[in-house]
Amino acid sequence: MSLPSRDLSQTLPPHALNRLAKEWLMEDTPNFDLAGLCVGSQEVKAHLLCKSPGTVLAGCPFFSAVFTELGCTVEWTYAEGQILGPDPVTLTAVVTGPARCVLLGERPALNCMARASGIATRCAQLQGLAQTAGWHGQVAGTRKTTPGFRLVEKYSMLVGGVSTHRHDLSSMVMLKDNHVWAVGSITQAVADARSVCGFSTKIEVECRSQEEGREAAVAGAEIIMLDNFKPEDLLATARALKQDFPGVIIEASGGVTPETLPQYFSPHVDVVSLGCLTQGCPISDFSLKVQRPETQTGR
Amino acid sequence: MSLPSRDLSQTLPPHALNRLAKEWLMEDTPNFDLAGLCVGSQEVKAHLLCKSPGTVLAGCPFFSAVFTELGCTVEWTYAEGQILGPDPVTLTAVVTGPARCVLLGERPALNCMARASGIATRCAQLQGLAQTAGWHGQVAGTRKTTPGFRLVEKYSMLVGGVSTHRHDLSSMVMLKDNHVWAVGSITQAVADARSVCGFSTKIEVECRSQEEGREAAVAGAEIIMLDNFKPEDLLATARALKQDFPGVIIEASGGVTPETLPQYFSPHVDVVSLGCLTQGCPISDFSLKVQRPETQTGR
Amino acid sequence: MSLPSRDLSQTLPPHALNRLAKEWLMEDTPNFDLAGLCVGSQEVKAHLLCKSPGTVLAGCPFFSAVFTELGCTVEWTYAEGQILGPDPVTLTAVVTGPARCVLLGERPALNCMARASGIATRCAQLQGLAQTAGWHGQVAGTRKTTPGFRLVEKYSMLVGGVSTHRHDLSSMVMLKDNHVWAVGSITQAVADARSVCGFSTKIEVECRSQEEGREAAVAGAEIIMLDNFKPEDLLATARALKQDFPGVIIEASGGVTPETLPQYFSPHVDVVSLGCLTQGCPISDFSLKVQRPETQTGR
Amino acid sequence: MSLPSRDLSQTLPPHALNRLAKEWLMEDTPNFDLAGLCVGSQEVKAHLLCKSPGTVLAGCPFFSAVFTELGCTVEWTYAEGQILGPDPVTLTAVVTGPARCVLLGERPALNCMARASGIATRCAQLQGLAQTAGWHGQVAGTRKTTPGFRLVEKYSMLVGGVSTHRHDLSSMVMLKDNHVWAVGSITQAVADARSVCGFSTKIEVECRSQEEGREAAVAGAEIIMLDNFKPEDLLATARALKQDFPGVIIEASGGVTPETLPQYFSPHVDVVSLGCLTQGCPISDFSLKVQRPETQTGR
Amino acid sequence: MSLPSRDLSQTLPPHALNRLAKEWLMEDTPNFDLAGLCVGSQEVKAHLLCKSPGTVLAGCPFFSAVFTELGCTVEWTYAEGQILGPDPVTLTAVVTGPARCVLLGERPALNCMARASGIATRCAQLQGLAQTAGWHGQVAGTRKTTPGFRLVEKYSMLVGGVSTHRHDLSSMVMLKDNHVWAVGSITQAVADARSVCGFSTKIEVECRSQEEGREAAVAGAEIIMLDNFKPEDLLATARALKQDFPGVIIEASGGVTPETLPQYFSPHVDVVSLGCLTQGCPISDFSLKVQRPETQTGR
Amino acid sequence: MSLPSRDLSQTLPPHALNRLAKEWLMEDTPNFDLAGLCVGSQEVKAHLLCKSPGTVLAGCPFFSAVFTELGCTVEWTYAEGQILGPDPVTLTAVVTGPARCVLLGERPALNCMARASGIATRCAQLQGLAQTAGWHGQVAGTRKTTPGFRLVEKYSMLVGGVSTHRHDLSSMVMLKDNHVWAVGSITQAVADARSVCGFSTKIEVECRSQEEGREAAVAGAEIIMLDNFKPEDLLATARALKQDFPGVIIEASGGVTPETLPQYFSPHVDVVSLGCLTQGCPISDFSLKVQRPETQTGR
Repeated sequence: MSLPSRDLSQTLPPHALNRLAKEWLMEDTPNFDLAGLCVGSQEVKAHLLCKSPGTVLAGCPFFSAVFTELGCTVEWTYAEGQILGPDPVTLTAVVTGPARCVLLGERPALNCMARASGIATRCAQLQGLAQTAGWHGQVAGTRKTTPGFRLVEKYSMLVGGVSTHRHDLSSMVMLKDNHVWAVGSITQAVADARSVCGFSTKIEVECRSQEEGREAAVAGAEIIMLDNFKPEDLLATARALKQDFPGVIIEASGGVTPETLPQYFSPHVDVVSLGCLTQGCPISDFSLKVQRPETQTGR
Repeated sequence: MSLPSRDLSQTLPPHALNRLAKEWLMEDTPNFDLAGLCVGSQEVKAHLLCKSPGTVLAGCPFFSAVFTELGCTVEWTYAEGQILGPDPVTLTAVVTGPARCVLLGERPALNCMARASGIATRCAQLQGLAQTAGWHGQVAGTRKTTPGFRLVEKYSMLVGGVSTHRHDLSSMVMLKDNHVWAVGSITQAVADARSVCGFSTKIEVECRSQEEGREAAVAGAEIIMLDNFKPEDLLATARALKQDFPGVIIEASGGVTPETLPQYFSPHVDVVSLGCLTQGCPISDFSLKVQRPETQTGR
Repeated sequence: MSLPSRDLSQTLPPHALNRLAKEWLMEDTPNFDLAGLCVGSQEVKAHLLCKSPGTVLAGCPFFSAVFTELGCTVEWTYAEGQILGPDPVTLTAVVTGPARCVLLGERPALNCMARASGIATRCAQLQGLAQTAGWHGQVAGTRKTTPGFRLVEKYSMLVGGVSTHRHDLSSMVMLKDNHVWAVGSITQAVADARSVCGFSTKIEVECRSQEEGREAAVAGAEIIMLDNFKPEDLLATARALKQDFPGVIIEASGGVTPETLPQYFSPHVDVVSLGCLTQGCPISDFSLKVQRPETQTGR
Repeated sequence: MSLPSRDLSQTLPPHALNRLAKEWLMEDTPNFDLAGLCVGSQEVKAHLLCKSPGTVLAGCPFFSAVFTELGCTVEWTYAEGQILGPDPVTLTAVVTGPARCVLLGERPALNCMARASGIATRCAQLQGLAQTAGWHGQVAGTRKTTPGFRLVEKYSMLVGGVSTHRHDLSSMVMLKDNHVWAVGSITQAVADARSVCGFSTKIEVECRSQEEGREAAVAGAEIIMLDNFKPEDLLATARALKQDFPGVIIEASGGVTPETLPQYFSPHVDVVSLGCLTQGCPISDFSLKVQRPETQTGR
Repeated sequence: MSLPSRDLSQTLPPHALNRLAKEWLMEDTPNFDLAGLCVGSQEVKAHLLCKSPGTVLAGCPFFSAVFTELGCTVEWTYAEGQILGPDPVTLTAVVTGPARCVLLGERPALNCMARASGIATRCAQLQGLAQTAGWHGQVAGTRKTTPGFRLVEKYSMLVGGVSTHRHDLSSMVMLKDNHVWAVGSITQAVADARSVCGFSTKIEVECRSQEEGREAAVAGAEIIMLDNFKPEDLLATARALKQDFPGVIIEASGGVTPETLPQYFSPHVDVVSLGCLTQGCPISDFSLKVQRPETQTGR
Repeated sequence: MSLPSRDLSQTLPPHALNRLAKEWLMEDTPNFDLAGLCVGSQEVKAHLLCKSPGTVLAGCPFFSAVFTELGCTVEWTYAEGQILGPDPVTLTAVVTGPARCVLLGERPALNCMARASGIATRCAQLQGLAQTAGWHGQVAGTRKTTPGFRLVEKYSMLVGGVSTHRHDLSSMVMLKDNHVWAVGSITQAVADARSVCGFSTKIEVECRSQEEGREAAVAGAEIIMLDNFKPEDLLATARALKQDFPGVIIEASGGVTPETLPQYFSPHVDVVSLGCLTQGCPISDFSLKVQRPETQTGR
């Protein structure tokens, strides 16, 4: 349970964290906080507890941002990326601030934390399979994220040690059958895309055969996605393409599950992407327990 | 597979749908749509396919709002709330519009649909258990939703036939131990809350014993939540409270899973709430298949 | 003029205050503050003076939020809910900050204060009539608020001691004749509404006769609004309904004025609502007087 | 009741109307429209009725913008600026659209209309006093508007025939005692302000004596505000200033009420401004009556 | 290189600076700051260097606002409006903060600074020509600014000593041929405009002949723009108009270049406006040089 | 002057265009359009004229978006990317709509058009030099764009035929000396960056020597930027690096001007980037001429 060597929170710009925190708080308390009248603004401490041993802790910068917005502070016992447990309950952080503000932030912050850590945990498990198998490649996510919540989900992939894949449609270009139909050939589609991608944005082509893969590679695509291949067909196709185009990156995608993932590990496959990193992913169970102030005996 | 009698899309105001659609599109294509250059604006049709038989269809108004924002139209083969299948693949809707616009909307719209239908499906299953058991009460959700995505998730609960529970902190007041500590007693906490809730907002009190429940009922709470009780203790406590306070609503919450849910069905329990309706819920598998235009033979 | 026992500012979440303050300042100084060049950033003190004796002070958290946004501080001499006066001018608070920032906040902060305190004062007067008359019920507001300014106006009702009534269309459901026509009967309308309200949101039905009231009560409505009844008819109808449905809340609404209000006080009427709490309500006169700095003798 | 010669709605840019409409609708229905389930989307007509004879109709473009945003249309029977009545109830417009959308827009649209027309009516009355008295000058408003709602209130002044005065702090500069203290003299304050106002923005100086007025006029102020003068002192001072500076505009302000207004009418006073045009102004009573569809007999 | 006597940053409201800073940062880092992982949050100092001797420094409040938003501080060596140089490189300010935050703000802050100072420099040069020539009038800008960036560009005009001209369409009214056609005459157009401008907003009329100028002046226009006149024609027309209407302001506009500008200097012309103050204006070259921390020797 | 083969407007998502149009219009008319009263809503046609022969037309989708938002339509005579001229004035498009709406959109739309076409024109000129010289590489832009206006400026680069380079800090990673210092070596910096970039985002390293370039290439950087080299040193270094790392992309940057650009053309240099594509770039002169309606003879 040593500290992770990389501090991934450095990849999140303060203005983006701040904006999300504001939005989430407005969603959960759009007008009155009626119960705030009872609880008041006495300073309290609250314990962030994780009840899912084995959780890879993720989402700390977002959790902190919510409470910072409310004038509270967060001290972390564990760092982003550490594995919590093995005790059934792990004290993960302490939040300090006015009682009603702690309660205002509680639900948005926990909702974020539970999802982020759940995703990081699954990602770490699957990337762990790759390491165990000695595979050189990377497990990768997809754009199958919850609308409005992508930054958290992609960040959780980073914490879990997998590749985020492209962030959005404005990032790396992926050419699918529709693009190819529209212009007539893979060659033409890559040429058109290159004219706007320049040198700084990669082009990936979704291919359904070795021939398509060859055409894409010749046309200058940096990455070839072999979509919905059976594992054995995939490995053969990947090997053939890599032999002739060793610089090209081969991605396997489509229908991969945690169970079938190891079938795609091959020296000729560089990336395997799965939607289940963010879709239907279990959460980690966190709760926030406000500590009863010693001096609090009613009004 | 008859049409549902209620058209739940009538509960979603157009301005809210429109705002979410814009935000989701900006998230997925914040600046350039580089691949749009290849695919162009020829009108195409795309099939929304569901590959998860047994799915309770949910999320249609959001899906439509995304495409409306892009100048596309959606024709639905099935209606919100219907069960899709039993075929392995069900044609659910047809989207028509400029090719690049269909692709711009594809991922946000599918991401919403998959989560919404997944939640509605789980909700329908659990509410179905209640109906099978002849229980009079309601399965209910919680505020354990994805930050920024609550409207979709609460709406999916409605489609799945369960209660949304309170929408946010500005809705029904729930008083927990922190509130009680702060003012000194349940009685005082309810009185304080009532002074701002007036007659239009309900008050619920989280109770840990029959005595607390009695105090809350006497103080005027409309709902008593028995939190983290073992099922047998819960039923005994609920029965005792109902006997003396027949008008009060009893909610069981905390640690309920789909497996243990039926243990809470009782004539004295009116509501059982579960976080798993929105946390770690499986998705339904949807895809959008653009139909190759007959006349499209390249530029 | 003792301090009020409840600190209602605890019901306003910091993020909501902050958002309104930013919007109001942008409205009043959208681009340049040309006069700021003259006045500069020397620290000054300014006195908030109330010139309307008898004013119930309301709006302090909003006033403070405006100046906090500008880097100024506010010290209050009086607390929210206190009655100002009887002197013709009452020093209510002192604002400290850079001169130009004090002037930037002056108008939006005063505009809010004058309206909030005006509403709270009228509310307190009318609720005072009820107390004098020994009426058990609550005077209540409506949704007849200034667009964009509802949170302030509803909050001022709380300070004035009346019920806010429902906050918006997403709160408590009110079924009117249109809803009933559309589904065919009050019974059906309540049933439909209940299917989406669940246990956490109340349903009110606007009724034009005792028969309608009975149907609504039997159908499960928590509140019956008797709309536009003459006082004598209202009291008779309310009594009859209460006799059979003692748990139902009876609201009188429509055409009630401050003058006719006492005619509605009855043991069988629980709520009387008036639009004039927020429509055409007089303001309280506040001004902000910057104190001339001793050392200021020009540049 | 002839049509007004000027169509003031031409002064409201569509994008500003559209933005306000969206904000107001989000305020009144932030998430679910639960009652929408009952009322559905059948097309209905609704009558906008005015129950305040003598009302100067104002706010039509805002009212229309709310319903346009919801996919409804509005047909006006009367035009902006016309006087409604003398019948006790005047059919002012007809709204057509899906039933639930008509109800979604009802409250925000009416809330705007009632306030706008109330202000226009009061403005027209006071400007009418001036015309009756044969006064050449203009009654004017102030910045004492409801935060967030200024465009509507200033627009209503235009409809009522009075001057809006400056719109915000980024418009015409007004120099008060604070500005003068800070730089040492009126002369210096006007010089500093002029350096940033250039030729396009006017400068007004608040003066407390004839000497100050002279200094301001010599310094180049376009307008001199005589603040809180007794009427007789004001007229003498205005006459003296006008004699020497015929091109300067003289504004009387401070403590003017509808009752004392005529005392300020003088050939030497050009503008009299009053806060009560927007503060504590009575509203006009409007309601929207959905017409029962003939064919509607329940589901 | 003495400090300028006016502190123009006092004309920029904090809320406007803050809003722009947030927007610019979101534009330049919409989601991840991937390189932030390498650089981390060690505190560093960075030097703002100007490499364009002769630059009139402008944009400091915007530059500071960007870094303030990121938790960094800025110390200025030179003040807004000072001339930088004559050394080839001038240390202008020092930014202190976490390394990754300094880099996050670098590009938006420099992009603003380079444009603001470039505009101020050109403005100062052209206004300098006027001073050299002993001309009484003012060089002025236009609305030909970069969309979304107007506040910075108009502010840079102030720093450079020229008039901003009207800020937007909601400021001073300018009547062009379209307005005149629509109502039939200059006289009618001015009358209509005056009815909504009141006393606080000036009216300018674009005229193509002395006759039009006379009509405008008689109608009450405060400013007459002589558009696209040859310099000699302009001077004759201006002289004639000034003789009869000494109080009217004469603006020359259209086709003026820095080279032809002096041809418009005349005692009868008060304002000459040029689009080139903001269009195609050279930038000043600024860079931000992070200082290598002594103790930094890798992780 | 044949039609360009690629329709670059397909790279701009409708929601992004729409958002910018709204913002620009709000900036230019934040509240009243006072002159709109005169001009009214009669339908007019307006001619978009280009007075800068040789202009490469760019910005059409933004221009259209502004007018679409206002309910006007635009018909283009020329297409994005075409060269306008050689006549001194070229009719480029016709705008049709209500007169006041045409005038509301005029300035924001022209301001965008002038800048976009100016940038595209300069880009096309410089890329033309490369083609003339037979250079295989690409001229590229930088992030030195106007804050808030980047999408337009980067898009104009595409129209002008150059590479946009990375769009923002969330795109391709560029490692500079600060990053290297912070982690101790280029090798470590690339490794750290790769851990978050995955396979989809390229890494560029700014190098000051051949040795640094080698270290970066070995570490896996896709692009090596040789910053501020003299042309002759650059070419030697580029050749040496390409010999050993033929797959690496070499970018020359820093101090390149349109005049010195050709000195960097070399078979070993793939990209030359210049800030002057967007900084200090001349504009193209466009104006919008409303056509006098035949039937318009005043009110």
